[in-house]
Amino acid sequence: MVRGQARRPRLADVAARAGVSKKTVSNVVNNHPFVAEHTRKRVLQAIEELGYQPNLSARNLARGRTGVIALVIPQLDMPYFSELARHVVEVAQQRSWVVLIEQTLGDKDLEQEIIDGRLCRRIDGMIYSPSRISAAALRRRTSSTPIVLIGEVIDDATLDHVSIDNVAAARTATQHLIDLGRRRVAAIGAMGRRARGAARQRLEGYQQALTEAGLHVDPALIGQAARYVGEIGAAAMDQLLDLDDPPDAVFCFTDLLALGALRSIHRRGLRVPEDIAIVGHDDIPYGRIAVPSLTTISPDKRAIAETAVDLLDRRVSSRATLPPRRVHVGFQLVVRESTIVRESTVVPESTGALSTPRSSARRVTALDG
Amino acid sequence: MVRGQARRPRLADVAARAGVSKKTVSNVVNNHPFVAEHTRKRVLQAIEELGYQPNLSARNLARGRTGVIALVIPQLDMPYFSELARHVVEVAQQRSWVVLIEQTLGDKDLEQEIIDGRLCRRIDGMIYSPSRISAAALRRRTSSTPIVLIGEVIDDATLDHVSIDNVAAARTATQHLIDLGRRRVAAIGAMGRRARGAARQRLEGYQQALTEAGLHVDPALIGQAARYVGEIGAAAMDQLLDLDDPPDAVFCFTDLLALGALRSIHRRGLRVPEDIAIVGHDDIPYGRIAVPSLTTISPDKRAIAETAVDLLDRRVSSRATLPPRRVHVGFQLVVRESTIVRESTVVPESTGALSTPRSSARRVTALDG
Repeated sequence: MVRGQARRPRLADVAARAGVSKKTVSNVVNNHPFVAEHTRKRVLQAIEELGYQPNLSARNLARGRTGVIALVIPQLDMPYFSELARHVVEVAQQRSWVVLIEQTLGDKDLEQEIIDGRLCRRIDGMIYSPSRISAAALRRRTSSTPIVLIGEVIDDATLDHVSIDNVAAARTATQHLIDLGRRRVAAIGAMGRRARGAARQRLEGYQQALTEAGLHVDPALIGQAARYVGEIGAAAMDQLLDLDDPPDAVFCFTDLLALGALRSIHRRGLRVPEDIAIVGHDDIPYGRIAVPSLTTISPDKRAIAETAVDLLDRRVSSRATLPPRRVHVGFQLVVRESTIVRESTVVPESTGALSTPRSSARRVTALDG
Repeated sequence: MVRGQARRPRLADVAARAGVSKKTVSNVVNNHPFVAEHTRKRVLQAIEELGYQPNLSARNLARGRTGVIALVIPQLDMPYFSELARHVVEVAQQRSWVVLIEQTLGDKDLEQEIIDGRLCRRIDGMIYSPSRISAAALRRRTSSTPIVLIGEVIDDATLDHVSIDNVAAARTATQHLIDLGRRRVAAIGAMGRRARGAARQRLEGYQQALTEAGLHVDPALIGQAARYVGEIGAAAMDQLLDLDDPPDAVFCFTDLLALGALRSIHRRGLRVPEDIAIVGHDDIPYGRIAVPSLTTISPDKRAIAETAVDLLDRRVSSRATLPPRRVHVGFQLVVRESTIVRESTVVPESTGALSTPRSSARRVTALDG
């Protein structure tokens, strides 16, 4: 699969370089008291020179850590979260952390238990993507385990928080449709009055782009979505297509909604993008192999993972009380077949997550924290 | 989201029922020595009556466990593995286990480290889906941490192992295509001489079905795939379509291969299923919203997770040496639009993993262990 690097140095390599037995290396790494000081120094030097990453537990023990962080997400098999989890596990591994996964599945009690320290003795800290819990509940939590928030459900100024700028992202997506000459640009994913976080922000960005272009914001073109799954995207698209003056473009707040909308359009015999252009959000792998492939907003998931692990590391390592940081990572608009007509011989983009192309990112927002 | 049950009992409920303070309940649950025996009994009785699940670490501490199991998989964001991980985390949670995820990304050294006990002091055992490591390496491992194998890469009689019957599954998929009257049935996913596990078994099942139906096994119809990703499925399909006598059906060894093949067929202006019928394998969520939606072999992932956690639990709990068990869980053939022509008004199946429909499973194989 991946990893082009040379083989990582092993315990045996350290032993060979230091001219000691593997057991001795292990003793040094595990901080056993009966290693002579000059031997210890030789081993540590060999570790340094080879860039050897010693056994996790030993290394962390020495730093007073458990060596474990928790990643708390709503659901592991939602494509966006599985990609994010993949990156968090990979980045954490590079820092000698292993990752424990808590999956909340929309269980508010479980979310509460987790912030109140269900895992506290096992972990150094957690990266937390809230689902149903409120900002107030987070502020009242009884545990002092460091938390870094990710995602857009809660925007709370008292905690470290990593996300993209959702308003800017939605504006970029909508602007792209307007630039293509579309004038009846719909949205799918609004959540009415109970909207918070991403749903609210993306609607705002959509409206901003229309207004900036001098276009009327038509409430009939704003499709509601109680949940961000394909079948609801299809139903919302059906409603929009039933309008007397149907849309010629649609920005869907997630790729799953967009893929559902795509199905609805196909069933009516309409063409994408000729009759209706579609932009999604999230850049999930399926969008790359859909027919047509899906133009989408691609949040820099790797940067979310790296920044979240960095912030957690900083908080775990520091003994001082640090002010909370709010970090926006970049995103890009990835233009594919659902908005641009191409020849039918177009080479498909990679479909395997292992080979996700990283073109030079159009970073609309950068670190601001 | 999910979980229709009543609110789970909390610490406060136990305290109220036992007529003691929350702190006392906590002391009992944490095995603190300074709780009077009659108080301890009253609290334990309240816990029992309410079905309260005490704090993980406390409960496990009493059983001499860490309360953590590891799930070792190649890559979290491959749809099959994210679904499997979702189920393992959910099932483990019900048994008061939390799940640590190790992602090997095809790194053989890391796979070796893991079986040699990289995590041993942290975990009670592991559920392991090998990627590149050999059965021999597994047998030589230096750690005694209980392991349950899942997946089909390694078939080793010395360890507990859960999978579906891949030969039977491939036979069912191919038989379905033959039953539809197709006579030039291709396969995509063979791996030549280095094939092991699933690749070998699925090819065998494909060939068996053809032979049973009195059809010739034509080597020209067997497409190779170095990796099971969409772009390789598309390339293999292109080759098959270039044949003088191209196939009228294809069984792809994974859904990702099938979705790539679908793209290749579309690009040539051919119709699915009219010109070419397609069956995939894995039942990943995207197959359900693809256009056309994908007929596929659906392994019972929930049963894989439950059986694996069961076997691990049994091994962790038992002090005796247990003989290894080989368990086949069920699968079903899910027939969708890529093999059967339907009216264009068909209601799409669910696209959200939260609402995956579980029709009555056609269990071709059952527990045999």
